[in-house]
Amino acid sequence: MMMFRGPNRLEAFSDGVFAIAITLLILEIKVPQVGGLGSGTALWRGLLHLWPSYLAYLLAFSTILISWIGHHMLIGQVKQVTQKLLIVNGFFLLTVSFLPFPTAVVAEYLRSESGSAAAAFYALANLLNSLAFFLLARTITAAHPDSLALLGRSQRDSFLGIFWCLACAVLALFSPLASLLLVAGLFVWWVRP
Amino acid sequence: MMMFRGPNRLEAFSDGVFAIAITLLILEIKVPQVGGLGSGTALWRGLLHLWPSYLAYLLAFSTILISWIGHHMLIGQVKQVTQKLLIVNGFFLLTVSFLPFPTAVVAEYLRSESGSAAAAFYALANLLNSLAFFLLARTITAAHPDSLALLGRSQRDSFLGIFWCLACAVLALFSPLASLLLVAGLFVWWVRP
Amino acid sequence: MMMFRGPNRLEAFSDGVFAIAITLLILEIKVPQVGGLGSGTALWRGLLHLWPSYLAYLLAFSTILISWIGHHMLIGQVKQVTQKLLIVNGFFLLTVSFLPFPTAVVAEYLRSESGSAAAAFYALANLLNSLAFFLLARTITAAHPDSLALLGRSQRDSFLGIFWCLACAVLALFSPLASLLLVAGLFVWWVRP
Amino acid sequence: MMMFRGPNRLEAFSDGVFAIAITLLILEIKVPQVGGLGSGTALWRGLLHLWPSYLAYLLAFSTILISWIGHHMLIGQVKQVTQKLLIVNGFFLLTVSFLPFPTAVVAEYLRSESGSAAAAFYALANLLNSLAFFLLARTITAAHPDSLALLGRSQRDSFLGIFWCLACAVLALFSPLASLLLVAGLFVWWVRP
Repeated sequence: MMMFRGPNRLEAFSDGVFAIAITLLILEIKVPQVGGLGSGTALWRGLLHLWPSYLAYLLAFSTILISWIGHHMLIGQVKQVTQKLLIVNGFFLLTVSFLPFPTAVVAEYLRSESGSAAAAFYALANLLNSLAFFLLARTITAAHPDSLALLGRSQRDSFLGIFWCLACAVLALFSPLASLLLVAGLFVWWVRP
Repeated sequence: MMMFRGPNRLEAFSDGVFAIAITLLILEIKVPQVGGLGSGTALWRGLLHLWPSYLAYLLAFSTILISWIGHHMLIGQVKQVTQKLLIVNGFFLLTVSFLPFPTAVVAEYLRSESGSAAAAFYALANLLNSLAFFLLARTITAAHPDSLALLGRSQRDSFLGIFWCLACAVLALFSPLASLLLVAGLFVWWVRP
Repeated sequence: MMMFRGPNRLEAFSDGVFAIAITLLILEIKVPQVGGLGSGTALWRGLLHLWPSYLAYLLAFSTILISWIGHHMLIGQVKQVTQKLLIVNGFFLLTVSFLPFPTAVVAEYLRSESGSAAAAFYALANLLNSLAFFLLARTITAAHPDSLALLGRSQRDSFLGIFWCLACAVLALFSPLASLLLVAGLFVWWVRP
Repeated sequence: MMMFRGPNRLEAFSDGVFAIAITLLILEIKVPQVGGLGSGTALWRGLLHLWPSYLAYLLAFSTILISWIGHHMLIGQVKQVTQKLLIVNGFFLLTVSFLPFPTAVVAEYLRSESGSAAAAFYALANLLNSLAFFLLARTITAAHPDSLALLGRSQRDSFLGIFWCLACAVLALFSPLASLLLVAGLFVWWVRP
């Protein structure tokens, strides 16, 4: 019953959520606490010691960036905004804006004995993201059958992504680092030519 | 005396506030602190233990998302932006951007003996949100009498929402969880077909 | 030498800064820490005890909202974006995005013996905001002499605002609360019909 | 294979990231903790004692603002959005949204014996920013050979910026403050008429 104009505000709101989620990631990197005494070496060591935070930042940034590119492409096909689309899109944004949390978990626990659990949690959060992207692609394809060629690949890629992330969650039990890198690899795959 | 162009900037500013409020919610979920020792089980237990945070996140996300959908629909009817509209819209945004705070209160206290107070506070914050939406709908209806059919439902729904939230605040004294779920149920009702 | 298209991106970037500054304010209200024991009364008392935070939130929200309305009106007159305008606008945004800090200072110290210093600091931060708005209004008026009637009031109001805030900074030494309310009153004056 | 419409969403997403990165800077200035006792003098002293935070805020704000002005100008020349452009632009945004972290490091350590390390780290983060801007300018120039006159300067300036920041990183070992100011000076140079 509700009526909406074109996808402008859908895009603006989504761009806002993507932009904030991607920028909030930096808040999870905390300034290292080194004693005021000692030379600058202590600070350099503190900054280097944060490498899991930098890695997690880089991976999550790439993931959200590529999600945004995919979203950009999907919504570019939309001619008619429906309430259903707004809700499915909202679920997708939920999974995007959730990502800073598993990223922070990975940054804190990657080096500890809980590294496997942290990486598996990260993979599962990405699974949810792939699932939501798949639902969004399906919703848009169903309403725009003429764009099938373009949308089909997104739908297939995100469907495969669900199982890929599941496999990465299992892999995390053996090698947290490999699992993290392979989850990010999924997104590199998405932007193949 | 002031003159404004169409609703573009009103929408852009509002979209920004909605997008930020909805994304800030994730900052309230804190990485669990488990001893570095022990297997990954401790981290999983810590992550599961956060369920009130996840629930509060989900409920507040839905609330803000549906407020945005309603706002999208309302502003879509606006032809002439007046200063009064900007101020009433500002009051509505105030109630939206306030929501992360009661959400954080609920996440922290839902399981404690203060759970009733937390849930009642959450219901009252949502009451304020319904009230502001009602005022916004009225302001727009008054200026655009020809859109009455479309706007009338928003106005009625938000008017009922005020009393619904009041009832939920009372219910919170008996069951905090039921109160939370019923407040969210109000928003599901808003997006009925 | 640089060339810019119309004010669209200037508006989008500014809207982003306004929206974030206004929404970040809520992060300064911290969930009260009450012992898990005791009935819900302790939490209610804790929530009520935060009144300086709510007051500071409300005042800063109003200030930023009205700054945005003024900015909206000013930029609506701009036909040609120059680099100078981008820089003066940047200085204005600097004073807007700074506001959450003095707001947090007021929220923390209003009730303490440092209340006067906190309120004076808040008034001085608003003085800077009025000064920057004045410079922005002047820059735009100089480039668009035909809009003088509309822009003249903004320019006069912000010029007076500088001295008003200065007076409020002095008043803060005697009554912090009165000073805070009078700073906010300035903005109510700006939106008079 | 993917197709994108004009640069609107690229601009909206980028504007969001710039606006958030620039506004998040204020979160790094923490309310000073002074004993509740004593006159307001203690609070004033605490506020003045934060000067490295204010300085870092001002420098990082200017840097991000001028990066945005440069980005505005570059993207204004883009006619065709390609996936490659989205990825190079994403790398540039990565270096922008990273800046609040070295800024916080400088604010905390400028006065300590680790001041040199902090300032060098800040210069290196800006080096990365210049490098990314250079890559973005090259990508756009290659695709729009007719805009060479306009884009050439951006490309040259950012190429020189890489070495300028490298020199500032070395200078930081001798004078952290001079290094900080010279990094900011680079950006003043960018906006010369």
